[in-house]
Amino acid sequence: MRNIALLVSYDGTGYYGFQSQPSGNTVQDKLEEAIFMLSGERVKLTGSGRTDAGVHALGQVANFYTSSSIPAERWAVALNTRLPNDIVVHEAVEVAEDFHARRCAERKTYRYSINSFRFPDVFARHRVFHHPAPLDFEAMREGLTHLLGEHDFTSFTSPLSTKPHHVRTLYEASLSVDTALTGSVEKGRGIAHITVTGNGFLYNMVRIIAGTILQVGEGKRQPADIARILAAKNRASSGPTAVPHGLTMCSVAYGPEWGLNWTPPYN
Amino acid sequence: MRNIALLVSYDGTGYYGFQSQPSGNTVQDKLEEAIFMLSGERVKLTGSGRTDAGVHALGQVANFYTSSSIPAERWAVALNTRLPNDIVVHEAVEVAEDFHARRCAERKTYRYSINSFRFPDVFARHRVFHHPAPLDFEAMREGLTHLLGEHDFTSFTSPLSTKPHHVRTLYEASLSVDTALTGSVEKGRGIAHITVTGNGFLYNMVRIIAGTILQVGEGKRQPADIARILAAKNRASSGPTAVPHGLTMCSVAYGPEWGLNWTPPYN
Repeated sequence: MRNIALLVSYDGTGYYGFQSQPSGNTVQDKLEEAIFMLSGERVKLTGSGRTDAGVHALGQVANFYTSSSIPAERWAVALNTRLPNDIVVHEAVEVAEDFHARRCAERKTYRYSINSFRFPDVFARHRVFHHPAPLDFEAMREGLTHLLGEHDFTSFTSPLSTKPHHVRTLYEASLSVDTALTGSVEKGRGIAHITVTGNGFLYNMVRIIAGTILQVGEGKRQPADIARILAAKNRASSGPTAVPHGLTMCSVAYGPEWGLNWTPPYN
Repeated sequence: MRNIALLVSYDGTGYYGFQSQPSGNTVQDKLEEAIFMLSGERVKLTGSGRTDAGVHALGQVANFYTSSSIPAERWAVALNTRLPNDIVVHEAVEVAEDFHARRCAERKTYRYSINSFRFPDVFARHRVFHHPAPLDFEAMREGLTHLLGEHDFTSFTSPLSTKPHHVRTLYEASLSVDTALTGSVEKGRGIAHITVTGNGFLYNMVRIIAGTILQVGEGKRQPADIARILAAKNRASSGPTAVPHGLTMCSVAYGPEWGLNWTPPYN
């Protein structure tokens, strides 16, 4: 059996998330159906992690085992012709037998996008959360710095988390504002992207971070409150879970031993 | 009666174009319905020009007459709450009684977007034409220069054009390539935007220009052929009509006497 790894983008708007559900209509289901149409094999695809309903991916990584003789470099084109047009496979390579898209992942990067202009951009409406009032971007940046490093993120995960422990490390937690439109715009208006990179993420963690940092941007909380929220280790201390459609899984990094030197396509 | 001008964006994917049709489901219908829900008036909206099914707009301008006393600055927010989320009103102002969105338009700018990377960007799939092979961007640029100035554009309009004459002036006809992704990409791969500004456009004109310039990019025609195609004044001499979803009406310019100093929101 050969082990094939895929680099996949998807617009999550129309799906119940990445991972297979009894109700169907997930990204994993569509990929497995396309693999079946192509190879006749019923495979089980392993993703680097699940994404919730409505959440997008630029550079999701998944792997599966196949006895098909189709050359790895042919899989991307062949799968794309069998996939709905909101899922695109960008790369396919044969990897070592013991590569596992979730267990071998060393870092993941997510982005949460927020538009604080008065009216939404119709073309980004499924991908950017629209917050029609100005935000204090500087305060949001300062709040994010408190999340850097190793912390117990219990305050930033759903009480439904099934993980035995909640300590994770964030290597990046930053906010950037698109500059193309910032010429003469009102202070606090813009399209902002919160980017977080970590060694792992808990259930709803990025969306709770985004919802809490939004409250900092609205002046409802102070940047230093983020440190107190972490220390509380209590979901009730943080802000709301931001809506899913602003969230994109950007990329997954693996150790050099796997030879997966993938940068996400587009941005 | 007050004359109200609107600046409108729409994702044309789900509509049969801007202008009302017996079959319904046009952008104009949705705007007129929203005005009716708000003011109780059955108005007839005048757009700066029609756009075909699937064509988008960043800065369409339209006007209508109302006896409503709602202040102009309240219309945008009030209409947006009554519109589907793929149509957004960005501005509303009261204009002189004789302002007419189509007849007073002095210049219009359209953009045709083409992605020549191997696989599409799922997030731009409704808005960018995917051409999965490299293009000669320099040849396309050179071909476009032949369109600048005043010409008879009979070769670049549908035989269905009902216009009495086909002489129009183009002030801009250029091609830009998004730089964010051009770091180490293969030559001829990129996301390219053809931008044309003119004093008026014939039926299908921008899509036929795009379809013909694409053939130049593919090496099927030479840049100098564009001059010969213009001279032929025959639709059969030019290339195919490019698919509608790559086209966006970007902006409409009016003389300073109308006080509509609008730049399109977003880009």
